Amino acid sequence: MALPFTLRAVDPGSRARRGVIETAHGAIDTPAFMTVGTRATVTGLDPRDLASVGAQVLLGNTYHLMLRPGVEVFRRVGGIHRFMGWSGPVLTDSGGYQIFSLSSDRTISERGARFRSYVDQRVHLLSPEKSIEMQTAIGSDVMMVLDVCIDSTSDEAHTRAAMERTHRWALRSLAARTNDAQALFAIVQGGVFPALRRESASFLTGHGFDGFAIGGLAVGDTRTEREDVTHFSAELLPADRPRYLMGVGTPPDLLQAMLAGVDMFDCILPTHLAWQGTAFTSTGRVKVTRADSGRSDTPLDARCDCATCTTSSRAYLHHLFKCGEPLGPRLLSLHNLHHYLTLMRDARSAIEAGSFASFARAKLDEIDRHEHGATKGIGKAVAS
Amino acid sequence: MALPFTLRAVDPGSRARRGVIETAHGAIDTPAFMTVGTRATVTGLDPRDLASVGAQVLLGNTYHLMLRPGVEVFRRVGGIHRFMGWSGPVLTDSGGYQIFSLSSDRTISERGARFRSYVDQRVHLLSPEKSIEMQTAIGSDVMMVLDVCIDSTSDEAHTRAAMERTHRWALRSLAARTNDAQALFAIVQGGVFPALRRESASFLTGHGFDGFAIGGLAVGDTRTEREDVTHFSAELLPADRPRYLMGVGTPPDLLQAMLAGVDMFDCILPTHLAWQGTAFTSTGRVKVTRADSGRSDTPLDARCDCATCTTSSRAYLHHLFKCGEPLGPRLLSLHNLHHYLTLMRDARSAIEAGSFASFARAKLDEIDRHEHGATKGIGKAVAS
Repeated sequence: MALPFTLRAVDPGSRARRGVIETAHGAIDTPAFMTVGTRATVTGLDPRDLASVGAQVLLGNTYHLMLRPGVEVFRRVGGIHRFMGWSGPVLTDSGGYQIFSLSSDRTISERGARFRSYVDQRVHLLSPEKSIEMQTAIGSDVMMVLDVCIDSTSDEAHTRAAMERTHRWALRSLAARTNDAQALFAIVQGGVFPALRRESASFLTGHGFDGFAIGGLAVGDTRTEREDVTHFSAELLPADRPRYLMGVGTPPDLLQAMLAGVDMFDCILPTHLAWQGTAFTSTGRVKVTRADSGRSDTPLDARCDCATCTTSSRAYLHHLFKCGEPLGPRLLSLHNLHHYLTLMRDARSAIEAGSFASFARAKLDEIDRHEHGATKGIGKAVAS
Repeated sequence: MALPFTLRAVDPGSRARRGVIETAHGAIDTPAFMTVGTRATVTGLDPRDLASVGAQVLLGNTYHLMLRPGVEVFRRVGGIHRFMGWSGPVLTDSGGYQIFSLSSDRTISERGARFRSYVDQRVHLLSPEKSIEMQTAIGSDVMMVLDVCIDSTSDEAHTRAAMERTHRWALRSLAARTNDAQALFAIVQGGVFPALRRESASFLTGHGFDGFAIGGLAVGDTRTEREDVTHFSAELLPADRPRYLMGVGTPPDLLQAMLAGVDMFDCILPTHLAWQGTAFTSTGRVKVTRADSGRSDTPLDARCDCATCTTSSRAYLHHLFKCGEPLGPRLLSLHNLHHYLTLMRDARSAIEAGSFASFARAKLDEIDRHEHGATKGIGKAVAS
């Protein structure tokens, strides 16, 4: 196995687990939230900023990086770590989701996906082999297989066809790997159909992958469907390998998935919402562009010790956003990432202490209370 | 006098001087370059970034800040230092230049300038008294009088009329000051006419201002005119008060003005050009958006020890600019400010060592060689 993964603790009241993944670029404490740096940059933040909020691992994207700057740049400088000045672990997504969501003028066949570049309009082929070749050049610590993404609302026949092609592509990806020092994760598909998810997990876990992702969620599914599939799928994955829920989600999504035993996450929400002027806080979301923020001399979150909350008032952040000043999104990005990474740190401590189920319940109740103004049940997650 | 200013050394080979201005928010080593933070932010940089490049003093702008966030915000939080989280000295420009350059629909009379806000289209009056009232609320360490700015190409009659009104407004500003802890600088006008500059300096230095600025340059004048007026005007100002050349300029402009005995500068060039993808380096300007930068794995400046040059290649910066990623302008802003502030630090050391004339000559020759590909004379500055 290319990727040492050690389980340190399992929560007695849920399936949550606390582990450590060792990579050539350092350890990843799990459950881990991976900061999204699609184009070899986390919008507006440099590696020192990322270290300051406690980011351990970044996520790059093969689709975007193959188009710009292009793979030759990574070959020349020896990989993404040197290119962007980040010395910690990097995971690269394969590009499957981007072909699904971004490419116009695309044709997907058994061979791979043919699409037109948004940079220079040239036609590219992204096949399982090509994706691995790119990720090898990018030099990520964890590579992902190219998968076939479809909408969660697709019918069972379409979902089965996409899943079966994903399986064939996964084996081609495994065969195409040339550098054993780079781990390779497979991606379980099967939409919202339990039988397909079971079949997908059963097939993929029979091969020598270093970890397993749950894909095909947050693409049209409801929150309940997402939680159901996550719980169901996570149980099907081997205990001794990391489990990665792709592209999910809000803090409640993360808490629910950790309860189900998921180890790794990525999501653009903390940075994406920051650029829109929305902050995650311990008392709910705050929209700094609203007029009431302009009159508030308190920090975004009085309980937060991030660099933004210790120096900037909501009124100052409001002013920056109203002026279109880039410091505004930057300060909110730092805060939102700190908020997410603090949640993960606190979650890991709670798992170590054996109190994660009650920790998650309290957090979920608190978020629900702040965002919906009432205490509701927190679903089957804790009860299961 | 509200503003202690101590001269520590005068260069034997030129008029360059090394001094220290003491403010309630810390010392300013002169000659000083003030980083421009027009709207209570230096585009994309936070106070820790500014400290990391060695910025000692920021410049805010009364015109922009009175329109947004508005003076009430500063009254409420107790000034700009708390508002933006910057604990060092701040100088505020009065808004005279912005009325000249930005306001449409403006009427300037003896009373002041009436103009329409670009934020909410409301009509505002900016008078000398109003500007001081605003600057008092903003809480800057050094305030500037409201002056009448005109184009450098204006004829002598118009230039005299603007100068005489500037003098009357300067006295009204002095009378309007309510907080002696905030210093107040007058602004010498008179365009490119030596007799008017002499008259302006003679009038203003007869009143109790804490320092004197040379205004009305970099608004249509040639480089030679600018240097001539700077040299001529600086000589007319008292040796025991700081001399501030407003809105100027390039590194050669700064070197020439320091040779003439100027102590303070501000200019948007280092940050403005950074946002356009241009870096100042020890071997001339570098445009990172050019294709050759995309193929270069060297830093912007091999002789620079800033955070950008120690972590990022030109190829990476090129990539960020091509992707429209905000980290690109941020990294270039950090580098360009570091470049300017290093020039000022080196200049101060050279004055202390009594070698500034030869230091400036070597720098000017080097810049000229890199930017124009040939060694030319460096003008009358050193010879005078």
